[in-house]
Amino acid sequence: MIRAWAAKGRKQKLEPFNYEPGELGPEEVEIAVEHCGICHSDLSVINDDWGISTYPLIPGHEAVGRVVALGAAAKGLRLGQKVGVGWSAGSCLHCRQCLAGDQHLCAENVATILGHNGAFADRLRAQWPWAIPLPENLDMREAGPLLCGGVTVFSPLKIFDVKPTHRVGVVGIGGLGHLALKFARAWGCEVVAFTSNLAKAEEAKSFGAHEVLGSRSAEELARASDSLDLLLVTANVPLDWSALIATLRPKGRLHLVGAVLEPIAINAMHLIDAQHSLSGSPTGSPVTIAEMLEFAARHGILPQTEHFPLDEVNEALARLAAGKARYRIVLDM
Amino acid sequence: MIRAWAAKGRKQKLEPFNYEPGELGPEEVEIAVEHCGICHSDLSVINDDWGISTYPLIPGHEAVGRVVALGAAAKGLRLGQKVGVGWSAGSCLHCRQCLAGDQHLCAENVATILGHNGAFADRLRAQWPWAIPLPENLDMREAGPLLCGGVTVFSPLKIFDVKPTHRVGVVGIGGLGHLALKFARAWGCEVVAFTSNLAKAEEAKSFGAHEVLGSRSAEELARASDSLDLLLVTANVPLDWSALIATLRPKGRLHLVGAVLEPIAINAMHLIDAQHSLSGSPTGSPVTIAEMLEFAARHGILPQTEHFPLDEVNEALARLAAGKARYRIVLDM
Repeated sequence: MIRAWAAKGRKQKLEPFNYEPGELGPEEVEIAVEHCGICHSDLSVINDDWGISTYPLIPGHEAVGRVVALGAAAKGLRLGQKVGVGWSAGSCLHCRQCLAGDQHLCAENVATILGHNGAFADRLRAQWPWAIPLPENLDMREAGPLLCGGVTVFSPLKIFDVKPTHRVGVVGIGGLGHLALKFARAWGCEVVAFTSNLAKAEEAKSFGAHEVLGSRSAEELARASDSLDLLLVTANVPLDWSALIATLRPKGRLHLVGAVLEPIAINAMHLIDAQHSLSGSPTGSPVTIAEMLEFAARHGILPQTEHFPLDEVNEALARLAAGKARYRIVLDM
Repeated sequence: MIRAWAAKGRKQKLEPFNYEPGELGPEEVEIAVEHCGICHSDLSVINDDWGISTYPLIPGHEAVGRVVALGAAAKGLRLGQKVGVGWSAGSCLHCRQCLAGDQHLCAENVATILGHNGAFADRLRAQWPWAIPLPENLDMREAGPLLCGGVTVFSPLKIFDVKPTHRVGVVGIGGLGHLALKFARAWGCEVVAFTSNLAKAEEAKSFGAHEVLGSRSAEELARASDSLDLLLVTANVPLDWSALIATLRPKGRLHLVGAVLEPIAINAMHLIDAQHSLSGSPTGSPVTIAEMLEFAARHGILPQTEHFPLDEVNEALARLAAGKARYRIVLDM
């Protein structure tokens, strides 16, 4: 029996929910969850904002814990090992993407909280490649949010071959954005934070920003004109896209990791003239998650968190929904 | 005295126009023009579609000819040498972009036909780095369109590190598109042509397409679903952008080289889910132009052309404007 918290329907509060997980699959591992971050996408899925949720729904996809059971075919893990599980809990392992090391882009990728029971629970199951070993010197109590939020902002630095000589902007200083500032600073880059709330300016600097500018002021954005190699947008609200593209240097990239639902209107000439790119990415592959965790441990990067016990999960979700979390909430099991 | 053809105002027919070019600048070379391609952007500038034209305006930016005069500081060229000049006729040479070899992205880049006298003339001047030596075995009579149209579609293959194992789509089989098919095929790629006019299908195959699909049919586009690493859009008209993005493989790129004037509405999730990019590029640097010419000579790549004498330039422009050119018009001086 796994003791979890679940939403019984769209936009419902979570309730205690116990379920019998059945026999452990040969490729699965079972993890005793110790901590789990709350991600904005947990809210989106509880509220069925993307129209793909199924209920009862157990959220939670930033889990850390210890391996307590190994399926017969599970590889590379041992009982008692500290691991983390993020957005994905499985993939087909045999498609072109999986075999090429891009398992996060597998068309059959299993999201931990979609059609799969998530980690607001005492136990969590995942396919073995998706239970990522945690470095020994990483603080387990704080590491949860790295598994989804962390890799989401770390991955672009890796996949686009960002150089330490680059100037990197981060739009939105929240759960993802504050981690992006830390990673970009440790990556060696010059870092510019863009926020709609300049009261966060000093804190943004403490996370790693060399400079903080307003994200909703044309005048502030113009101060960063033609200066950024990468602009990482972690906000999920409509923005002045033309003004943001104008902050890019020639060959610069505006990269989206925030699920902006409104269409983004792009002027083709703004991409053509200075050879700009607009792109997006989801989380990352198992190897990218492992590299991110090692990089975080080496550079002392952890999220700034607020902790709640699991049985106060509804209060924690309400606080996140109200935009009050500073900057990531972790549930302790 | 240089004998040219010029538009005296917006949307005017060209008329004979002689001008005194003054003393040759130290960094300039003067070229006796032998042939000059007509590019769609010549029409756009004659018509002032971009609001930046000045008159009298001498179009022509796909010129080939021989060096007849060298400024005191002109480097790397000799009198009598065969050269080509494309979209750019100068750049500052000292900014970050110029020093890094991206002279085409210089903020002070001088377009050959904007505030500078173009190549529908017996003589043309250009700053020495922008007079690109032609390989000996390249047919000068046909090479003109490579200098702008050719490099515009060749450059993305180079700058995005396209592999011969990739599957490349080309939207729009016109002046640029037919060259894109030839370059992508010679690059070693699997090539898919998308056209609004399936009557061009056999010809598209002769240019290098392995497969030809309709660009305006959702059903045809769906046949290429999830299959392309690069989709090069050479058309400059609004398209079904969501359907085109759906033809990309994970990590695929939709790349614009056609100056689509209407805003392009993008759904962020379509970029995020499968790590897609949307991008654009203008022409290319002097080194990229030189590499493109060498590649074209080695692979026997030339545009399919129609020739007009310079004094029939208005008839030639009308034919291009009517969409009747198959596939690129060259003026013979």
